[in-house]
Amino acid sequence: MLSPYVRSAWYVAGWSHELEAGKPFPASILDEPIVIYRAASGRLVALEDRCVHRLAPLSLGRCEGDRLRCMYHGLLYDPDGTVAGIPGQELVPRNARVRRYAVSDRHGWIWVWMGDPDCADEALIPPAVGLADPDYILGHGQLDYQAEARLINDNLLDFSHLTYVHANSFGAGPQFAESLPRLEPLERGVRYSRWMVDTHGQSSRKSDVLVDSYMTYDFLVPGVLLMWSGNYARGTAKRLAFAAPRLEDASRGVTFTSQAVTPTGPRASRYFFSWGPRKGHGDEALRDSLMQLAGVAFGEDKVMIEAQQKVVDRTPNPRIMPTAHDKGVTLFNRLVERLAKQDFTPAPTEKTACR
Amino acid sequence: MLSPYVRSAWYVAGWSHELEAGKPFPASILDEPIVIYRAASGRLVALEDRCVHRLAPLSLGRCEGDRLRCMYHGLLYDPDGTVAGIPGQELVPRNARVRRYAVSDRHGWIWVWMGDPDCADEALIPPAVGLADPDYILGHGQLDYQAEARLINDNLLDFSHLTYVHANSFGAGPQFAESLPRLEPLERGVRYSRWMVDTHGQSSRKSDVLVDSYMTYDFLVPGVLLMWSGNYARGTAKRLAFAAPRLEDASRGVTFTSQAVTPTGPRASRYFFSWGPRKGHGDEALRDSLMQLAGVAFGEDKVMIEAQQKVVDRTPNPRIMPTAHDKGVTLFNRLVERLAKQDFTPAPTEKTACR
Amino acid sequence: MLSPYVRSAWYVAGWSHELEAGKPFPASILDEPIVIYRAASGRLVALEDRCVHRLAPLSLGRCEGDRLRCMYHGLLYDPDGTVAGIPGQELVPRNARVRRYAVSDRHGWIWVWMGDPDCADEALIPPAVGLADPDYILGHGQLDYQAEARLINDNLLDFSHLTYVHANSFGAGPQFAESLPRLEPLERGVRYSRWMVDTHGQSSRKSDVLVDSYMTYDFLVPGVLLMWSGNYARGTAKRLAFAAPRLEDASRGVTFTSQAVTPTGPRASRYFFSWGPRKGHGDEALRDSLMQLAGVAFGEDKVMIEAQQKVVDRTPNPRIMPTAHDKGVTLFNRLVERLAKQDFTPAPTEKTACR
Repeated sequence: MLSPYVRSAWYVAGWSHELEAGKPFPASILDEPIVIYRAASGRLVALEDRCVHRLAPLSLGRCEGDRLRCMYHGLLYDPDGTVAGIPGQELVPRNARVRRYAVSDRHGWIWVWMGDPDCADEALIPPAVGLADPDYILGHGQLDYQAEARLINDNLLDFSHLTYVHANSFGAGPQFAESLPRLEPLERGVRYSRWMVDTHGQSSRKSDVLVDSYMTYDFLVPGVLLMWSGNYARGTAKRLAFAAPRLEDASRGVTFTSQAVTPTGPRASRYFFSWGPRKGHGDEALRDSLMQLAGVAFGEDKVMIEAQQKVVDRTPNPRIMPTAHDKGVTLFNRLVERLAKQDFTPAPTEKTACR
Repeated sequence: MLSPYVRSAWYVAGWSHELEAGKPFPASILDEPIVIYRAASGRLVALEDRCVHRLAPLSLGRCEGDRLRCMYHGLLYDPDGTVAGIPGQELVPRNARVRRYAVSDRHGWIWVWMGDPDCADEALIPPAVGLADPDYILGHGQLDYQAEARLINDNLLDFSHLTYVHANSFGAGPQFAESLPRLEPLERGVRYSRWMVDTHGQSSRKSDVLVDSYMTYDFLVPGVLLMWSGNYARGTAKRLAFAAPRLEDASRGVTFTSQAVTPTGPRASRYFFSWGPRKGHGDEALRDSLMQLAGVAFGEDKVMIEAQQKVVDRTPNPRIMPTAHDKGVTLFNRLVERLAKQDFTPAPTEKTACR
Repeated sequence: MLSPYVRSAWYVAGWSHELEAGKPFPASILDEPIVIYRAASGRLVALEDRCVHRLAPLSLGRCEGDRLRCMYHGLLYDPDGTVAGIPGQELVPRNARVRRYAVSDRHGWIWVWMGDPDCADEALIPPAVGLADPDYILGHGQLDYQAEARLINDNLLDFSHLTYVHANSFGAGPQFAESLPRLEPLERGVRYSRWMVDTHGQSSRKSDVLVDSYMTYDFLVPGVLLMWSGNYARGTAKRLAFAAPRLEDASRGVTFTSQAVTPTGPRASRYFFSWGPRKGHGDEALRDSLMQLAGVAFGEDKVMIEAQQKVVDRTPNPRIMPTAHDKGVTLFNRLVERLAKQDFTPAPTEKTACR
């Protein structure tokens, strides 16, 4: 990979509903080939997608109960990655195994922990809103980028691009880029928030009357954006001294979007997203119009970011010049660099300790 | 090339019937560009496909009698690779020549010797069965692989993959992979053989009555597989003490397949094959059904091997873990390494001697 | 770039009519990304196509008066390349600027000077004949090559290839390649000329009566070919002692072609061309038949040159063997090497002096 990425983190490998029972599912995270399957017992398994015999992909293999068989020459793997059997041979070499990954099915996504599986901490899975969440009516989609994940993260960490990249879709006006959002560092990310006072709300969900509009998102390691927004009665912002309101108090227009950026290869990423209204704040028709808007807008991002990647690639020593809007970008990328460094630092007290 | 390959060997460049008289035919072997043509005199010529003038490919050229003219600026080549004329210029530099290759048209294939052409030994051409052989009714085909030839050779050197890769085509059952074939080293290859006793024969040509079924193949340098199989009366295997039977004694079901793997580039190969019944053991209909089966099965190999190549390519230090079935693979690859080393060892007695 | 190229030279970036007012136009010259636009004031601007902020291409940007705005995060550029404004930020870093290129609209082409813009000398723009020239009836076209510009230049510097590459299109016979043209070094190029005596003229514009036919072209740095040809009364060549005739004295058949080869990337070029009769020497129908002929013939060049590039690329240490026809090629390439070297030699007298 070109930029540093954190290994001790949960990456989205795919949608929960994509993973059919008994059917190996191939994924690529941090340029590592991974095969994921739901075993007969219901257990979720993630292994290195590379047979120890001749490096064939196990994702072309066959689930047999809780085990996975390589369909090149028939080596059989246990869910912990050890080889359980080799056709035509009685003994199995003791150290014949592939790497095991910790994997979890949460919030409608399959998450893979890229660090030591014994240190995987499910409490660190970002609290996305899953497609099956009863409180929301969500649409979803995904895009494959020919660009480094870092460039997509940077994009999501600076919404001033809405004024320019999305001038013809989201339609945030020039004043949007002229003002800075509120920013708060989190243990594993950055929180953004912004009040817009006396507004008709976002162009995609115009309010008839003037309202105070609020939006906030957390951008969390390794590259997960969780955002909600909603409209409040005029005067709410001032009454709260511009502090964060409660989602429940919003008068209307509450939507939630979960987005995840997964680095798949050196200049390749997969971008997952869902978006839709909270129950009582919209219906399937609004969901569909939001998804149509997302289709256009996320396409605009893709054009810009893939073009940016090409320019970066043909630049001998690419350097950036941060602006005032890059405060969040810088905060997040420093956090990533710090966590990435920790990945390779031995824990101080005992050999087996996890960070 | 990624793996060692033998230069002092005959590689298949194409089918004899593909080579039209007077029409230059481009080939790529061991990543070297080669042009082959049938001269007016009937002589077969193979030259380096790269004009000495400005490196244009001679395969875009024009046959003129026994000579070949580069159609960029008109340099004329003799069949031995020397420049015979340069337009607009009276003298030809003495050392103006391209490399000449020894080439032979045998058994329906055009073979090119990649070593010193003066050392080319036609006795080393593997005894394939040509499409025009009166004893067989053969179909044929070819596939271009985005994979190193070595990976295809390895595949053909271990038929235990029939149980897995071809579970839904050739349909060899699990017991096939559980037992090992008989193996015999040859001077330039490995011989495999296998008796199956009290069987209905191979799934593609089921016998109504129980028979003893025999199959054997030689896998020869640089990567040529020559296989025949046939059915015998029950008890034959035991009567012969499981030794090799004579092809002529087979009661029915005799087929022959010739297959050749040619390394064309670093991760590119061309795979040639023919297959069909012996006269009296089947007809055109059987040939066609065998070719249809081959189309499916060789497609299965291609999917697996190209996927394997991709995994190998993204693995920093790819290592394999041989199994009991790899005995033939190891034997053959050691032979290749030994012969490849000899390619670059000066002959002991005199400068011009060939090995 | 693989070969040396002159920076202090005018390269064709595109056709004048392609450049719509207020619409950024992307170009790539010497593997550098360049954005060109006609500002509101009519001024022509060429800048480095890479925002200082995050390296997004400015060619995806928006013209605002004489300025160009990056449409990723809104940085605004002055026509001299300095950043004029950054949204959300009051101060602009003093050295925030992209490179400016000298650019000129002449003879129907947009020319970019790749050297120091303060040293750009418009007198060095090759005197092509523009599409709007009232004396000519011109057609035009362009081709993208997957080949180094140098290989195309070499092609245009040795017309003996007409006999071979264009055997079936331009149809110059074998005698054409057997004789050498007259050659004259120019300060920034090479001049070719050739009388053909007692001929029916060029195959594309056959004369009914025998004529003396003359053709001449200048091939100028960085890679611009300007050629005219015409027919003269029999005896003219001898009467002029085979010196150059005046274009105005031609009896008929005068045409002019302007051609430009622009290196866009390491193995990528764009080839621009126009061709047509002089007024009084042909009409739109002749122009169209010439363009049809050019379409066939330039396609023949492309096949040969791209194939040549592929052979060059797979040759470890590619070397050429020049022939008698390469005199002009060698002259020109030495000139290029000398000028390219000067690009990086400090001027002797004062720091800011231009060569």
